[in-house]
Amino acid sequence: MTNLLLYSDTERSATLRHEIPLSIGDPFLFAEVDGAPAVLSNTLERDRIAAVRPGIRIIDYQDVGFRELLESGSPREEMMLEMVSRAVAQLGISEATVDPDFPLAVADRLRADGLALTPDHDTFAQRRRAKSGAELDGIRRAQHAAEAGMAAAAAVLRAATPDGDRLVRGDGTPLMAEHVREALRDACAAHGAPAPPDVIVASVWQGFGHEAGSGPLPAGLPIQIDLWPRDEVTGSWADMTRTFVVGELSDAVRAQEALVTRAFAAARDAARPGITGCELHASACDVFEAAGHRTQRTGPGEDPAEGFQFSLGHGVGLQVHEDPDLGQTGRAPLVAGDVIAIEPGLWERGVGGVRFEDLLLITDDGAQTLTDYPYDLTP
Amino acid sequence: MTNLLLYSDTERSATLRHEIPLSIGDPFLFAEVDGAPAVLSNTLERDRIAAVRPGIRIIDYQDVGFRELLESGSPREEMMLEMVSRAVAQLGISEATVDPDFPLAVADRLRADGLALTPDHDTFAQRRRAKSGAELDGIRRAQHAAEAGMAAAAAVLRAATPDGDRLVRGDGTPLMAEHVREALRDACAAHGAPAPPDVIVASVWQGFGHEAGSGPLPAGLPIQIDLWPRDEVTGSWADMTRTFVVGELSDAVRAQEALVTRAFAAARDAARPGITGCELHASACDVFEAAGHRTQRTGPGEDPAEGFQFSLGHGVGLQVHEDPDLGQTGRAPLVAGDVIAIEPGLWERGVGGVRFEDLLLITDDGAQTLTDYPYDLTP
Repeated sequence: MTNLLLYSDTERSATLRHEIPLSIGDPFLFAEVDGAPAVLSNTLERDRIAAVRPGIRIIDYQDVGFRELLESGSPREEMMLEMVSRAVAQLGISEATVDPDFPLAVADRLRADGLALTPDHDTFAQRRRAKSGAELDGIRRAQHAAEAGMAAAAAVLRAATPDGDRLVRGDGTPLMAEHVREALRDACAAHGAPAPPDVIVASVWQGFGHEAGSGPLPAGLPIQIDLWPRDEVTGSWADMTRTFVVGELSDAVRAQEALVTRAFAAARDAARPGITGCELHASACDVFEAAGHRTQRTGPGEDPAEGFQFSLGHGVGLQVHEDPDLGQTGRAPLVAGDVIAIEPGLWERGVGGVRFEDLLLITDDGAQTLTDYPYDLTP
Repeated sequence: MTNLLLYSDTERSATLRHEIPLSIGDPFLFAEVDGAPAVLSNTLERDRIAAVRPGIRIIDYQDVGFRELLESGSPREEMMLEMVSRAVAQLGISEATVDPDFPLAVADRLRADGLALTPDHDTFAQRRRAKSGAELDGIRRAQHAAEAGMAAAAAVLRAATPDGDRLVRGDGTPLMAEHVREALRDACAAHGAPAPPDVIVASVWQGFGHEAGSGPLPAGLPIQIDLWPRDEVTGSWADMTRTFVVGELSDAVRAQEALVTRAFAAARDAARPGITGCELHASACDVFEAAGHRTQRTGPGEDPAEGFQFSLGHGVGLQVHEDPDLGQTGRAPLVAGDVIAIEPGLWERGVGGVRFEDLLLITDDGAQTLTDYPYDLTP
């Protein structure tokens, strides 16, 4: 059995948060030696850690010469490296697997001590894919918050009316992406899972990609709402997208809707243990390509955004984007317990695009949809 | 001039956020070669990056063989390493300074390519200490939100009344730490700078250290409110603490208040360019030790928490704890432009403690207090 080492804080490292399910803002060392967990921790955190991981071995700063180092006058960074080095010596290990993000300064010190360190993505990704009950509860809470946020966004859109090419509110002023975002974020936060400020409220007017969207929203064109709230208790995420049109639905948008609905169903129906992310992505690409659209698989045409130029989705858990990979590089087969977001969509110059995104929990023989929200384009 | 390399996302890496002031959730490569910035970025982010760093060199995924790698079937992690390797080759560098948190997997690959990488804390810490105007504006906004949050907390406490040893609300039910936290977090969020769920509302009943605090609050004992909101626009933080007592003030608490006020003033008055964090910490320790209290400098007595067993504070910016170090290991002299939180306090068994925390901006000849809130123990 290989030893494991992590060095980070639980806000920045989802891998560490999975092992120590607490919010801890200052970095610390976590180890697993012959399957037994250990941490190097200071007095401020040790009781909290012991409470969530009963039986964990806690090496206190005092056990690795904290006071002596404090008095020696070495800078804090060197002091931390020295304490980590001594703690690892106390653990009595000569090799360890570390996550790919393991900090170089700590690695250089431990290797200089003679430790063999091997960064490996899969070891830690596999551990995260097996979610704890608390993490799964957190994903469900975040998903409920997402639905509340989407309902709030839909209500704001429903109250708007077309005025020429744009939407206006009851008082005649333009409806802005910011108004919709504020309403949905308030609803998510009220449900215990705030959504970050860059959740997407955007049409073709706002542009393509990871632009959050600002300014007036159009009448008769698709408006995508893509939001990802995070459960405050566990740090688990959800992710959800719907597309709305206020005003007349053009044939182009109806055609997109029909195709995206088919691609979405194809991917959802194919989701089960054993299928790879690449194969799942292909199930959506097949639908789009058969209808003459470009996909990431065929490559873009003149316009880099046109068609389905992104992956099908991604795993969701303590990170909003995590394993399994659901794009062309997704070699790993799905396993029961995976939580994935599937989000096929189309994009067309001058029109924008329709996209839907649901969370699926992979079960022993298929997938359970965690998202409970209609797909109607009319809010 | 040394070259710099960073590889992270801007949510996890404040160092990268300082260079690319945007929220970007997926990791990417940043380089500075002969003072000129460059990034390796995908289509989804390139326009946003170009908008905030005009003139930055953008190496697109397509420029480093994205499609060919996609078709080669290598896992995403290896594909990313290969693209980073090719991008660094295009930059034509043979050595670089990296931050201590530089991911080991990327470092191992670049070193295998022949690149000399040196992790260094100070290089990047210095860059962060020189805050941009936007970052400083963000800190000020977060600080205003903190004051609004503190006022909301004080209002909840003011409305409570002692009932035996605890506080009760108007309806006769116990006042809980959770009630106070909810009020202050709502106020911070309404001011554009949400505070995380683990901000501290705690008395001696709730315990010492980084425990956020839950359950009933006591009458006649100090209740510490320590909150750290983050400005949503810039990602900059503030940090602020006040201590309140509802009910009769004991002599022990009044004595703590008098001493902490003196230690606080001593540290604030000593804050100026040139003084080290260790010296600033000492200015507060001097006051406490002269009155017979233990400090982190003298070491703890029987009770590890008793006295002033922590550092004076810390720098504040894109991280809530960052350089300069204001504890015994604080060797670096302060410089004009530093933003620091000073938070001296005392802790006594059976009583709890009084602590105040303000933000200071170090100026050319002293320090400007950014916090605008009274220190009264009576809310």
